[in-house]
Amino acid sequence: MDRLIKAIAEKKNPTVVGLDTHYKYIPLADTGEMDIRRKAEAILKYNKCIVDHVYEYVPGVKVQIAYYEMLGLAGIECFIETVAYAKKMGLLVMADAKRNDIGATAEAYAEAFLSTEKPGDELFFADYLTVNPYLGEDGIRPFIQYCAEHDKGIFVLVKTSNASSGQLQDQVLQDGQKVYRHMGNLVGEWGKALTGASGYSRVGAVIGATYPEELSELRAAMPHTFFLVPGYGAQGGGAADVIGGFDANGAGAVINASRSILCAWMREPWKETYAPAQYGEAAKAEVIRMRDALTQEMRTQGICPW
Amino acid sequence: MDRLIKAIAEKKNPTVVGLDTHYKYIPLADTGEMDIRRKAEAILKYNKCIVDHVYEYVPGVKVQIAYYEMLGLAGIECFIETVAYAKKMGLLVMADAKRNDIGATAEAYAEAFLSTEKPGDELFFADYLTVNPYLGEDGIRPFIQYCAEHDKGIFVLVKTSNASSGQLQDQVLQDGQKVYRHMGNLVGEWGKALTGASGYSRVGAVIGATYPEELSELRAAMPHTFFLVPGYGAQGGGAADVIGGFDANGAGAVINASRSILCAWMREPWKETYAPAQYGEAAKAEVIRMRDALTQEMRTQGICPW
Repeated sequence: MDRLIKAIAEKKNPTVVGLDTHYKYIPLADTGEMDIRRKAEAILKYNKCIVDHVYEYVPGVKVQIAYYEMLGLAGIECFIETVAYAKKMGLLVMADAKRNDIGATAEAYAEAFLSTEKPGDELFFADYLTVNPYLGEDGIRPFIQYCAEHDKGIFVLVKTSNASSGQLQDQVLQDGQKVYRHMGNLVGEWGKALTGASGYSRVGAVIGATYPEELSELRAAMPHTFFLVPGYGAQGGGAADVIGGFDANGAGAVINASRSILCAWMREPWKETYAPAQYGEAAKAEVIRMRDALTQEMRTQGICPW
Repeated sequence: MDRLIKAIAEKKNPTVVGLDTHYKYIPLADTGEMDIRRKAEAILKYNKCIVDHVYEYVPGVKVQIAYYEMLGLAGIECFIETVAYAKKMGLLVMADAKRNDIGATAEAYAEAFLSTEKPGDELFFADYLTVNPYLGEDGIRPFIQYCAEHDKGIFVLVKTSNASSGQLQDQVLQDGQKVYRHMGNLVGEWGKALTGASGYSRVGAVIGATYPEELSELRAAMPHTFFLVPGYGAQGGGAADVIGGFDANGAGAVINASRSILCAWMREPWKETYAPAQYGEAAKAEVIRMRDALTQEMRTQGICPW
C-alpha cells in the first residue's frame, strides 16, 4: 500500500473517485435509444472529463467493472481505456471487481488485473483489485503472489456497506466472534508477510462507511491492514462515519464516493447541465467538498497529518 | 432449472463440460511465444473442437471466464464467441464468473450475463451464472429478478470444492450450524418463489464434489435447490463422491468436470496428440467414460432414471 499512502499524502486527500459509471449517470437527455457501443463511447468520454477535473485533487480512482461488463465487449474496451487514461493522468487505479476463485483460476484473474503492464497487451492492468474471501485462503493466495511480484495490492471484502451484509458477516461464531471479525483476523494473517515501510500490508480490506462502529472495531483489531471504505455519499456515510477507519496518524484508510460525484451535475447549482465544462466542474466541486469535510473531521479528532 | 433438467433427461447425462480453457491446456507444442490475441484464437478453435465432439453427449458447458479475462479484450471476445458457438450447437451455457455486488452494481452484472439475447449486442448471454453470497441477500436479489424475467438461473456458492473452503464455510455458528448450512438455508429461502414444474428453483447452489458428506447433508436439507457440483476428475471427486448430490429420482444435480476432459489428450492413448480429430476424440471419450461411471453408480444406488 506504500504507493497509495504516498499518493494520499501528496494530494492531502484520502479519497478516491468511483467511476461506477452507469450510462444513466451521464449527462445526456436521453440514452434510451443508444446501442451499447454508443453508450460505451459516451461513458469513456464522461470518465475522461471527470478524470481531467479531479486528477489534481485525488490520489486515484476506483473503477467498478460491472457497469462496463453490462455493455459487453464495447464496455470492456471502455474499461481498459478508462484505466489507461486515469493512469496516464497520474492516478492510481483500483479495479472493483470482487473476483474470487481457486488455484489456477484465481491466478488467471490475478494475471488479468494485477500483472505488470506490457504495451500492446490489452489487459485490465489495475494497481489494486477488490477480492471476495468466501472460498478461504486458496482463493486469496494467488492474488497475494501477484501483489508481491508486480508491486500491486488487493482489498479483501470483510464488512460490506449494504443493509443485508449481516446475513452472513454479522453471524456470531461459537467463539463469540462475528464472521466479519473472523475474516478480518484471516486477512491480517494473510497479509503479514507483505507489510511495507508504511507499516501497512499490500493485503487490505473493504469495510463499509455505513457501519462506523465495526469500522472502528476493525481499525483497532487490524493494525497492519489498510482499509478501502466505500459507501460515502449516496449510500449514506459521511465524514463522521468514516473517521474511525483512520489510525492515530490519519493514515490507514481511503474513502470512496461514486454516485455523489458522478451525479453531482444532477444537483443544484448544476442541475441538469449537459456541458462538459459544467458537469466536470460539478464533480470537481463535490470532490473538494468531500476532501474538506474529511480534513475538517480529522482536524477535529486531532489526527490530520497535513 | 426446468430447461437444464429437461436437457439432462434428453442426453441421459447429468454432466457439463467445463471450458476452463487455460491456453496451457490446449494442444500446441509451445504457446510461450504467442501474443494474447493468438492465444485467444487458439482457445476459440480448441473450444469449438471440444463442443463439436461432445455436444451430442452433454446438456451443456460451463465456461470459466477467468481464463478469458486473463487474455484481456481478445479473451473476452473469445468468451462471447465460445458461448455463442455452444448455444448454436444446442448446449446450455453456464457462465462460471462468481460475480457479486450490491444494488445497481449487481443488476449490471445480471444484465451482462443473464439478459435475453439481442442480435448485435455483444453481451455474455449465458443461461446460468454462478454467484458469490458473501454480501447477503442485497447481492443476490438483482440476479434472481433477472432469472425470473429472462428465463435464466443462478448457482450460489454454498460449499466450495477447495481445501481451504472450511476457513469460512465450516465455521460453527452459535446455533450449532456451520456457515455452509446457514448459507444453504438462505439460498433455499431466496429461491422459494422461483420453483419450477420440476420442483427445483431457478436459484441453485454450488457444492463441491470433494465434500461428499456435506453434499448428502445439503441434498437432504435443500429439497428444492438444484446443485452444480464441480471438482469431479482433476480435483479428485469420483462417481461415488458425487452420488449424494442426487435425489431419490436421480435428479437434483449436475456434475462438472473441466481439466480431466480438456486435458484428456495429454493422457494415454492420446498422449500429446496435436491433431484436432484426435484431441477432440480424447475429450469425447472422457465425457462418455464420465457419463458411464455416473450411470453405473446411479444404477448401483437404484436411482438411475434412464
